[in-house]
Amino acid sequence: METSTFPIVLVGAGNLATNLGCALSRAGFPILQVYSRSQESASALAGRLGCEATTNPEKLAADAELYIVALKDSALETLLPEMIRGREKRFWVHTAGSIPLNIWERIPGVKRFGVLYPMQTFSKARLVDFRSIPILLEANAPAQMNLLKEVASTLSDNVREVSSRQRRAIHLAAVFACNFTNHCYALAEKLLAAEGLPFELLLPLIDETARKVHTLPPQEAQTGPAIRYDENVIQKHLDALSGEPEMQTLYRLLSQSIHEAAQEKLKGKN
Amino acid sequence: METSTFPIVLVGAGNLATNLGCALSRAGFPILQVYSRSQESASALAGRLGCEATTNPEKLAADAELYIVALKDSALETLLPEMIRGREKRFWVHTAGSIPLNIWERIPGVKRFGVLYPMQTFSKARLVDFRSIPILLEANAPAQMNLLKEVASTLSDNVREVSSRQRRAIHLAAVFACNFTNHCYALAEKLLAAEGLPFELLLPLIDETARKVHTLPPQEAQTGPAIRYDENVIQKHLDALSGEPEMQTLYRLLSQSIHEAAQEKLKGKN
Repeated sequence: METSTFPIVLVGAGNLATNLGCALSRAGFPILQVYSRSQESASALAGRLGCEATTNPEKLAADAELYIVALKDSALETLLPEMIRGREKRFWVHTAGSIPLNIWERIPGVKRFGVLYPMQTFSKARLVDFRSIPILLEANAPAQMNLLKEVASTLSDNVREVSSRQRRAIHLAAVFACNFTNHCYALAEKLLAAEGLPFELLLPLIDETARKVHTLPPQEAQTGPAIRYDENVIQKHLDALSGEPEMQTLYRLLSQSIHEAAQEKLKGKN
Repeated sequence: METSTFPIVLVGAGNLATNLGCALSRAGFPILQVYSRSQESASALAGRLGCEATTNPEKLAADAELYIVALKDSALETLLPEMIRGREKRFWVHTAGSIPLNIWERIPGVKRFGVLYPMQTFSKARLVDFRSIPILLEANAPAQMNLLKEVASTLSDNVREVSSRQRRAIHLAAVFACNFTNHCYALAEKLLAAEGLPFELLLPLIDETARKVHTLPPQEAQTGPAIRYDENVIQKHLDALSGEPEMQTLYRLLSQSIHEAAQEKLKGKN
């Protein structure tokens, strides 16, 4: 089935907006306009997409079919009312993992609304392939859901409907699986740099750690000294971190948490 | 250059010994014997390698060229003296990231010793490809180092000499980049399970998080609410974790640590 395309306005020009805008444009959707509070960001993304840029909410195009709002959570609520005025009949969606669907109900006059949340870590410098990215949808009525499914399916093979509550859990899980994981990489890099060793040394380990959970549940994939709380090794590591009290605390708490999870699993088996 | 192979005794039958034994065997080294304190583990690995199993340190073969000790750190020091007696002229290496080379000096009579530390997360159920795994070597003399380099090079293209101090830092970094990372996956799984959602949903994110640091330093690859300490989102997440005080503490500390690292980076730029 050929999906019909239609004009889209992109509200936001950050990491997510950049990746989503480029993916939609490649999928054949004309991006009419990019809004951002920063002229530099608006122009940069509009330049990539070959469309108009604006920093003035009042100048938002009025004739797009779909308005995709990819602003920081804190900016969303303050900016929306002004943007929507005069464009209440259009279809509005936001892209935030942590914001419920019903945020739209607080804005007078909006009748068609939804959420299109692509769960991925996006950076402007790195355009990702959307094909396998879960795109999580929510909408206020079946007609809107159908339209969102059509759009999302042109980008990804991994589209599903979830509730606001589920999306919140997914977003929180993503912070653990991505942001905290990446920070563990950053802390590891710091430890190696102190001994003049390159971060690249860790890449095969990082790759295998990620690959492993494709076939084993993370709990079973776990290795290392914390599972049995090997005092011998753990004490050496805590000593080595004596100059980094914050990392020392993280090390202790994460090791305890690993150990407790392993103990619970053992109990479950007996 | 054809590497000459020679008989090896494997002391240990855990995750690392299993992976290393299978890799050495495939590379053409005859494994003479497997020792483990557990008959079950010794027999399982000896069965895979087609060699003899023993649980008696006194029955260790006396005529191997190389003895690779892959025991838990806590067992190592207690078991070694007994094992080595009568085999002092052989070449002994251990495989532990956190144990210094000089542990061998405490054992009377041993003249040729070293360390062969393959840095990877190993599980018995999953044989990994050694080709890209860093194998980190240390030895008490050039002749031993050369032999270890020969052996390691038959397994991996990523062989390097490191000091005990560097190896300790690498091992600690590996705990962050692998064990703690994997635990973040496990905690994320728990959050999804509570909402009836499958862990598989996170795999594209986990893969991209790992892939990303091949081209961006982890610090630059970071995304999410903690960078600018977005109170709005972070407070929602902490509320959602109110039933899991331990995860709540980890969430708070990791977010603060991400935020501080981002602030330090900004300061460095100004």
